[in-house]
Amino acid sequence: MVVKVYGPDYANPKRVPVCLIEKGVEFETVPIDIFKDENKAPEFLKLQPFGSVPVIQDGDYTLFESRAIARYYAQKYKHQGTDLLGKKIEETGLVEQWLEVEAQCYSPPITDLIYKIVFDPIRGLTPDPKLIKESEDKLCKVLDIYEERLSKSKYLAGDFFSLADLSHLSLTQYLMGKMGKEYLIRDRKHVSAWWDDISSRPSWKKVVELWPGLY
Amino acid sequence: MVVKVYGPDYANPKRVPVCLIEKGVEFETVPIDIFKDENKAPEFLKLQPFGSVPVIQDGDYTLFESRAIARYYAQKYKHQGTDLLGKKIEETGLVEQWLEVEAQCYSPPITDLIYKIVFDPIRGLTPDPKLIKESEDKLCKVLDIYEERLSKSKYLAGDFFSLADLSHLSLTQYLMGKMGKEYLIRDRKHVSAWWDDISSRPSWKKVVELWPGLY
Repeated sequence: MVVKVYGPDYANPKRVPVCLIEKGVEFETVPIDIFKDENKAPEFLKLQPFGSVPVIQDGDYTLFESRAIARYYAQKYKHQGTDLLGKKIEETGLVEQWLEVEAQCYSPPITDLIYKIVFDPIRGLTPDPKLIKESEDKLCKVLDIYEERLSKSKYLAGDFFSLADLSHLSLTQYLMGKMGKEYLIRDRKHVSAWWDDISSRPSWKKVVELWPGLY
Repeated sequence: MVVKVYGPDYANPKRVPVCLIEKGVEFETVPIDIFKDENKAPEFLKLQPFGSVPVIQDGDYTLFESRAIARYYAQKYKHQGTDLLGKKIEETGLVEQWLEVEAQCYSPPITDLIYKIVFDPIRGLTPDPKLIKESEDKLCKVLDIYEERLSKSKYLAGDFFSLADLSHLSLTQYLMGKMGKEYLIRDRKHVSAWWDDISSRPSWKKVVELWPGLY
């Protein structure tokens, strides 16, 4: 049974293909064009009532929310491909802690920054430098804590690559590309080494190759 | 070994005591007064570098982020107390899906509403009715989807009480109290029945009894 991934063409949904590649799970993609409101179509809303991407269908099982899908496959194929959850339950606890930090502390300011710099101009809006500075300052505070953490362990949850690191790939890739914000990563020695490590994994290289226009 | 819970006196941290009570895990609390910046004290920042509550210490194991802590204990004591993760892995996937919905879709507008109605006036700010209306409208859209979901299953992830339901308790309790927003729940038949069910669990009643001033 090949897993169907709906709407993988945007940043957050990329958590799903990169996770499936790490786990060696075959998948096919179903594009959902949110600029054409395909995510608001009645058929799609039956799968995902909030009209968000991604969604997966695996036989008759449907699941949405990128981090929930990644957790599901990390657990379902625990002993296949890369172990993304840690060996001991205390390690899994730390994976979950840093996944929550990514969702609650890292994603909000980086998403704000991406919208202001990348998407607002596409929509004809002029970004306000003061608001960009505010988002960047918030992100810097988070990255300073990451720098401290990554000076003590190779990856966020410990000395093993996990779902917590994987979950940072798609949004961070934006900083390193068109946005011209690479220095936020490069100015921090341990964050920079961590980024080089996680972004050079074959799984992420494959995702960037599959969706080259995104970044 | 008794689990130490730091800073359980606020809404989001309540996920931890209610989870520990459901699992039958003994704990003691260490108050952290964020109005006195105790969360910014160097000793506290060693436990939680972002200066947020809650944090737990369990022997020499430290963990932060309320949902991560709840997941850790739900998994560690899977076969003790209430099973909060579902029996099959597909059920656990749905628990994670609705936990993410709570974190990404439900919490932001309800938190906005609580800040505008409860905390801004305490800080001498006059709430803007237009902004209150905006947050309420966003929350209503989420609750409409919950109403549809809860017309089909007794709880969010299926016909079993889970971490996904538990995670909604602390913020929703605000609507039902001083805020005067009870109608947001009561106007929706299935959401209303779900609230009555989950909020009458002995675990939640105990939490409200332990921290009576909060709501």
